[in-house]
Amino acid sequence: MEKLTIIKVGGKIVEQPESLLHLLTSFRQIQGKKILVHGGGRSATALAARMGVETTMIDGRRVTDHQMLQIVTMVYAGQVNKSIVASLQALEINALGLTGADADIIRSHKRPATPQADFGWVGDVDRVSAHPLLMLLDAGITPVIAPLTHDGQGHMLNTNADTMAQAVATGLAPHFDVELIYTFEKPGVMKADTDNPDDVISHITPDSFQALRSDGIVTGGMIPKIENAIEALRQGVRQVTITKADNLHKPSAGTRITLGC
Amino acid sequence: MEKLTIIKVGGKIVEQPESLLHLLTSFRQIQGKKILVHGGGRSATALAARMGVETTMIDGRRVTDHQMLQIVTMVYAGQVNKSIVASLQALEINALGLTGADADIIRSHKRPATPQADFGWVGDVDRVSAHPLLMLLDAGITPVIAPLTHDGQGHMLNTNADTMAQAVATGLAPHFDVELIYTFEKPGVMKADTDNPDDVISHITPDSFQALRSDGIVTGGMIPKIENAIEALRQGVRQVTITKADNLHKPSAGTRITLGC
Repeated sequence: MEKLTIIKVGGKIVEQPESLLHLLTSFRQIQGKKILVHGGGRSATALAARMGVETTMIDGRRVTDHQMLQIVTMVYAGQVNKSIVASLQALEINALGLTGADADIIRSHKRPATPQADFGWVGDVDRVSAHPLLMLLDAGITPVIAPLTHDGQGHMLNTNADTMAQAVATGLAPHFDVELIYTFEKPGVMKADTDNPDDVISHITPDSFQALRSDGIVTGGMIPKIENAIEALRQGVRQVTITKADNLHKPSAGTRITLGC
Repeated sequence: MEKLTIIKVGGKIVEQPESLLHLLTSFRQIQGKKILVHGGGRSATALAARMGVETTMIDGRRVTDHQMLQIVTMVYAGQVNKSIVASLQALEINALGLTGADADIIRSHKRPATPQADFGWVGDVDRVSAHPLLMLLDAGITPVIAPLTHDGQGHMLNTNADTMAQAVATGLAPHFDVELIYTFEKPGVMKADTDNPDDVISHITPDSFQALRSDGIVTGGMIPKIENAIEALRQGVRQVTITKADNLHKPSAGTRITLGC
């Protein structure tokens, strides 16, 4: 099968002109078909502050009331997405920006409120439509996806960018040999709390993950990240890579996660 | 040739939930392939005010400094475009939102400053790429175009929505039998200053336009509108219609402008 690379980049990198240009120059060097999924949370928080709207987070996730939904729609689908698309066009990559609502590519449902938390207009992904993405990729167009979906009833929904990247990767896995790359502030999953490339764990499988976890080497927020990666592999993605944005185009950098050896 | 209808709707209609829903229900009834081009100026002015940014207009056109460019990009490509796309999806129209940067559909250049006026980051259209639009239309997708273009050097540019609609119409005229519809607050071009449908001039040709103009029946801002319409016809568009948004789907309503009788 043909190779497809799906890259998720966090907000910090795409929200500053210098680091964005650096990232996109790396992205450009990736051979073959590719998709970029981006965040934008810092800019959303900054715009909210400027508009006098308070940002509330629960467990690191944004509570999205009606006003915050307007803000994230403006920032993710407008400011951040178009800044990436225009910059890629300048690098002669024929990019096209999408949210889940565009061509109905990702449909979700509003997360139900619980007694513990009501996240508001936040969407949990139900399904990905592969067809429009296949058409764009076949036409030499590079989709740039903002972290927003829709419910099919006229509402946009704020959706976690990591989750969207995973949904797109598994949705396209029947059609491509998919590598899903999560960019990260460190060089990969680390053996020790350093930035030293020598401390990168170069390869993780489900078995080695159990050992790394029980030995206390992989801890905290990295555990659900790797669990999600293993879930994506079980749904047909060939490889998940966790790497530094600067090393995007270096196949040997970062941590490779695969089902087998 | 197959028919294609391109509709330009102003900001006022698409910026209020009730009138937007009404418009889109009308839009849905238009048979065959179609494209929607929208504005959003009122929302941009409102967001600017909320952010403490002053809006400056010269001859009714927005001056777009760096900060205003960020605002119009957020409002046009984010808030307004995605609100239309999600609403059309709920009406089972498979919409996809675009700016001129997306798939490089409309490229422009920054309008040079003159001693009289510097509009800032405003783009004058250079060319339309028909191919990606043809591909989307053939796939049953309805493009929804925000009034923004790009310069191919990484900059978004604020671009007049009427001009964009005309550029898209002439760009697609070699491929389709194109009708370009400008929605208007009145039922059409009027013989007298009323809202009475009996006073609508039902048909204008270049010859009758000269007479209407010299007799002082067509005046003011309507003159450049009709001049632009005639220019679009000369570039291959079959018919330009000026009509009330409510009457979008009624072929006999409004003013038809054609080259011949």
